[in-house]
Amino acid sequence: MEFIQKLEKLWKQGNFVSIGLDPEYSLIPEVCKQNSSAISDHIFTFNSAIIDATREFVCAYKPNSAFYEAHGAEGWDALAKTIAYIKTNYPEIPVILDAKRADIGNTNKGYVTGFFDVLHVDAVTVHAYLGQEALEPFLSRKDKGTIVLVKTSNPGSGEFQNLEVSEGKKLYQIVAEQVASTWNKNKNCCVVVGATYPEELAEVRQIIGDMPILIPGIGAQGGDVEATVNAGKTENSDGIIVHSGRSIIYASSGPDFAEAARIEAKKLNEQIKKFLV
Amino acid sequence: MEFIQKLEKLWKQGNFVSIGLDPEYSLIPEVCKQNSSAISDHIFTFNSAIIDATREFVCAYKPNSAFYEAHGAEGWDALAKTIAYIKTNYPEIPVILDAKRADIGNTNKGYVTGFFDVLHVDAVTVHAYLGQEALEPFLSRKDKGTIVLVKTSNPGSGEFQNLEVSEGKKLYQIVAEQVASTWNKNKNCCVVVGATYPEELAEVRQIIGDMPILIPGIGAQGGDVEATVNAGKTENSDGIIVHSGRSIIYASSGPDFAEAARIEAKKLNEQIKKFLV
Repeated sequence: MEFIQKLEKLWKQGNFVSIGLDPEYSLIPEVCKQNSSAISDHIFTFNSAIIDATREFVCAYKPNSAFYEAHGAEGWDALAKTIAYIKTNYPEIPVILDAKRADIGNTNKGYVTGFFDVLHVDAVTVHAYLGQEALEPFLSRKDKGTIVLVKTSNPGSGEFQNLEVSEGKKLYQIVAEQVASTWNKNKNCCVVVGATYPEELAEVRQIIGDMPILIPGIGAQGGDVEATVNAGKTENSDGIIVHSGRSIIYASSGPDFAEAARIEAKKLNEQIKKFLV
Repeated sequence: MEFIQKLEKLWKQGNFVSIGLDPEYSLIPEVCKQNSSAISDHIFTFNSAIIDATREFVCAYKPNSAFYEAHGAEGWDALAKTIAYIKTNYPEIPVILDAKRADIGNTNKGYVTGFFDVLHVDAVTVHAYLGQEALEPFLSRKDKGTIVLVKTSNPGSGEFQNLEVSEGKKLYQIVAEQVASTWNKNKNCCVVVGATYPEELAEVRQIIGDMPILIPGIGAQGGDVEATVNAGKTENSDGIIVHSGRSIIYASSGPDFAEAARIEAKKLNEQIKKFLV
């Protein structure tokens, strides 16, 4: 099933949370490190327990490649095992690889192969700076999602993103317009807007129509659920992938970490649904 | 030794070429695939032969991560072996990982660990879109280079990069200004400008003073050596990392591939030196 179809099906079931499978090694509970000496096993044990505990509430899992590349080939192996675990056990849940890639066209083909055909992820995040022509290897994959960074959640994201360009429009608005008007010919694009910028989120929703928005920054980064949902939802009361990382997966560092993650994921999803009605 | 010092030392020796260690599997000569069934061995056999044959003429090797990630964990293993080979045998030659990364600050720490402390590369390429605040984990590493995409070599790079922003300046000019005026406090920044845009290259050289410029797009992409050198060089007749990928490493597909690469690398370096005088 295509990425967008998977998303829409889970939204209809009332699932709006994306969980970050972002294993910072020092924060992985000790209980995950006891039956092996291999870092890749510790990461996989942690991730698979989080996945089993939270799957009822999610519309996506989003591993960020940085946390795996920190451990070299062993980390990449843990990433591949984690994705395969989801594909085998919960094939209805899409996997977004938060890789924030973008190169020239010929080179992007390597990423497309590695992510879509070797790791089998459903979608990938990309930088827009090189333009549509360079990103065509991603965009031409109708079965997969291309999720373009528009307004990122970090405090300093305005340095370039908020520069005023033509007719008083800001750069992030121009990027959103281009993605909506030109890049999305295969109906496989989404955008990223941080929950830490609810006004900008509402503006982007106006620009892009009902295109899905991946919204990081809830929880540890300070984004507010009510403001996020109100600013980000479509007229159909969906269209949002509300992402939380550390607040869910590190809710407890004890042996109850998976149950604690389940409670936080359920709570967040219920909050989202309350404001979607 | 720090990245910039390594570069300057090799420039003084008359080396200005950067070679792309970008193994497209179908283009790797058959002779590299005969003594093993493992893709990672084929890639490493190819890369190490190219390195041995061309090292006299280079100021950097630049593997692009996409060509390794196309093969999953096995590709990452080949990347690690290739970098270790350079570090062991030719420690004077800096390795630039062309990864084009950039995430929020907390996440960039994972890339910094993985690239600088696990793979031990000397420099990495980054997207500017998230701003200086997010990229601080890279920028604060005084011993390592942070190479910021300013004007990329691809035909469609103007979609956002050439947008007119304040006072008639274009986005790529603003990025270059910010890097030169604010990001470079540790004197460890460089910028990327494509050889396919010699006018923009000359403009950027005016903006950034004597900061090094990584210049891809020579050879297969069509950049001209004379125009590139004239537009990119500093008053000291250096400051340029002239990058070529496919034209050198795939100069021959036969058993003479390494010797053919040596001839092309030498020829390119001599052309550069001719126009630097």
